[in-house]
Amino acid sequence: MRIGVLGAGQLGRMLALAGYPLAKTFVFYDMSGSPSAGLGEVIIDREGKYLDDFLSRVDRVTYEFEHLPVAIAEKIAQSTPVHPGPRALQVCQNREAEKTLFGSLGIPTPQWRMADSAESLKTAAEELGCPVVAKSNTEGYDGKGQAVLRSPEDAAGAWEDIGHERLMVEKFVEFTREVSLIAVRGADGEVDFYPMAENVHHEGILRYSIAPAPQLSRELEEKADGYIRTLLNELDYVGVLALELFETANGLVANEMAPRVHNSGHWTMEGAMTSQFENHIRAVAGHPLGNTAARGVSCMVNIIGEHGDVDRILELPYTHLHLYAKGERPGRKLGHVNVLADSYEELKWRVRNVAQFLPSSPELDCSLTR
Amino acid sequence: MRIGVLGAGQLGRMLALAGYPLAKTFVFYDMSGSPSAGLGEVIIDREGKYLDDFLSRVDRVTYEFEHLPVAIAEKIAQSTPVHPGPRALQVCQNREAEKTLFGSLGIPTPQWRMADSAESLKTAAEELGCPVVAKSNTEGYDGKGQAVLRSPEDAAGAWEDIGHERLMVEKFVEFTREVSLIAVRGADGEVDFYPMAENVHHEGILRYSIAPAPQLSRELEEKADGYIRTLLNELDYVGVLALELFETANGLVANEMAPRVHNSGHWTMEGAMTSQFENHIRAVAGHPLGNTAARGVSCMVNIIGEHGDVDRILELPYTHLHLYAKGERPGRKLGHVNVLADSYEELKWRVRNVAQFLPSSPELDCSLTR
Repeated sequence: MRIGVLGAGQLGRMLALAGYPLAKTFVFYDMSGSPSAGLGEVIIDREGKYLDDFLSRVDRVTYEFEHLPVAIAEKIAQSTPVHPGPRALQVCQNREAEKTLFGSLGIPTPQWRMADSAESLKTAAEELGCPVVAKSNTEGYDGKGQAVLRSPEDAAGAWEDIGHERLMVEKFVEFTREVSLIAVRGADGEVDFYPMAENVHHEGILRYSIAPAPQLSRELEEKADGYIRTLLNELDYVGVLALELFETANGLVANEMAPRVHNSGHWTMEGAMTSQFENHIRAVAGHPLGNTAARGVSCMVNIIGEHGDVDRILELPYTHLHLYAKGERPGRKLGHVNVLADSYEELKWRVRNVAQFLPSSPELDCSLTR
Repeated sequence: MRIGVLGAGQLGRMLALAGYPLAKTFVFYDMSGSPSAGLGEVIIDREGKYLDDFLSRVDRVTYEFEHLPVAIAEKIAQSTPVHPGPRALQVCQNREAEKTLFGSLGIPTPQWRMADSAESLKTAAEELGCPVVAKSNTEGYDGKGQAVLRSPEDAAGAWEDIGHERLMVEKFVEFTREVSLIAVRGADGEVDFYPMAENVHHEGILRYSIAPAPQLSRELEEKADGYIRTLLNELDYVGVLALELFETANGLVANEMAPRVHNSGHWTMEGAMTSQFENHIRAVAGHPLGNTAARGVSCMVNIIGEHGDVDRILELPYTHLHLYAKGERPGRKLGHVNVLADSYEELKWRVRNVAQFLPSSPELDCSLTR
């Protein structure tokens, strides 16, 4: 089976690496002009001229990033099965649609308002009570297009800084930690969940994911499983879906979802029986899903900006290095290291060992170290 | 780093899949005209015209099969580092050179003689005592070019059947089982060993490898480690080397070696901390070697001739499927399934579960089932 991937970055690369052993082949369709997948056939199409050519070469289509025109996904869906479907894309590209969907399905979110002027932003901040976070309703990711308002008086400046015509304003959530859930739904409707991960962000970028999330109550995990199952079924979703949540004193609050394999699921490559990438390919290709159980405990450490001392990392006996073959640039995701252990205590020390060879890694600050 | 692979079959494919995450790229050089790697750039060169072109595109050369002209490896070595080196190739292509090397290094082998006529084959059979196995001195693999002589009178027929000008004649070894050892030597001379595997052959083709080999004494394992370390150092070898041995009532007897990643090491993909493929690439590229420790116990089941029921295999929660994207043909290696478990008892039942969906799999007959 020939699988077409919209986008040609590291997620597409890892989808292909997981898919070849299932006898799939890959064609990437890249609209950015700077593909980095580094394997498979790549069709570069900045002007949208070669979509039909791309479609003639593939049996199924999926994507590795959700910021592509919904119209393209809809056009593709007319001739070729595309998973996840266009509706999931649409919801994920629009914070208002996403939070509205969450609310309608009983998934708790921060309190929110929409704002379409500096004035309405100020009103929203007053109604919600500061601090609030203002985010562009569309096109924002990895912390871009966001501002924190400590007081309603910050509204004019924040409106200016973000520079979007419509913002979502969210009441700031007092969370104890950030967690995420990766689930996969098969073509037959079967749903499987990975153990949830605890995520550590720094400067708006994911740095560490620890899985299974330490000291997570079974009750909260089951709640989260229920939330994502509802989403998957509602969207008649096929493939991997990621849901980011805050853990608070009052339970879980959903932040956002991503209709694709997700950075906080990279630990599954060696840390679970079947990786998120393989399970996404299985779902898209119509195969039965693979076992999502964890193998021991693990932590994914992102390599950001610079590669660090690769050979010292390769020497560490409980690590797996995954490089994306990209050039160094501040803030850029260049690869990740999966660290494996039998206990969290062991894991903590091993992660610190790895981090010392990655100059841009912040100190590990998570439930294991507090 | 660009790695050139001589040969473009499933071993090259799996080398590439292990090498991309280390930011390597791959160019295959195929002399057969029927490459099956299915990824990377492939240069097809039946007439040997494009070797220079191939070499201009790579920084290091390795190979996935040892039946290529030594002269090519020597020519390559003049311009580009090639690992393992031409001498290892030479030894592995010639049973007499191989067994002579084994003997000179104190590695036990079956008793052997050379024969270059039907008459000398008969004499060798008489001297060694039947049964003996006659094998073409060069160009034989996977059980081809071999004959068993139950009596010296079989010599004329065997000579005719094999049809080679020079044969090695080996006294038949009474073995309790076949085992193999995969080791890797880094560019700096570091040597690491995988746990040995127990191998089950059927009709001359490997069917199952169980690792770590059950009930193998630490003493025998250390002996085998010593044998392969001596070989690696003697050949100033860089990369993965496989050594096949017989376990007998009197200890281990070496059968043959393969200067490459080996089918009996495919279990390492999920069954060890670092796969043989990754370790080969690490060695060839000059990186530190990775941890060779096993993760639980595992069994590799070869998929021979026909694919069987792929979706039923994918449903089994402790299996990993690795397909080579090749067409079905009797006796052809089409893929393998790695089965994982925490105990040998569990492993045995899981392997039987897998085998029922592979019509060409013989019943599991190994130390676990006797």
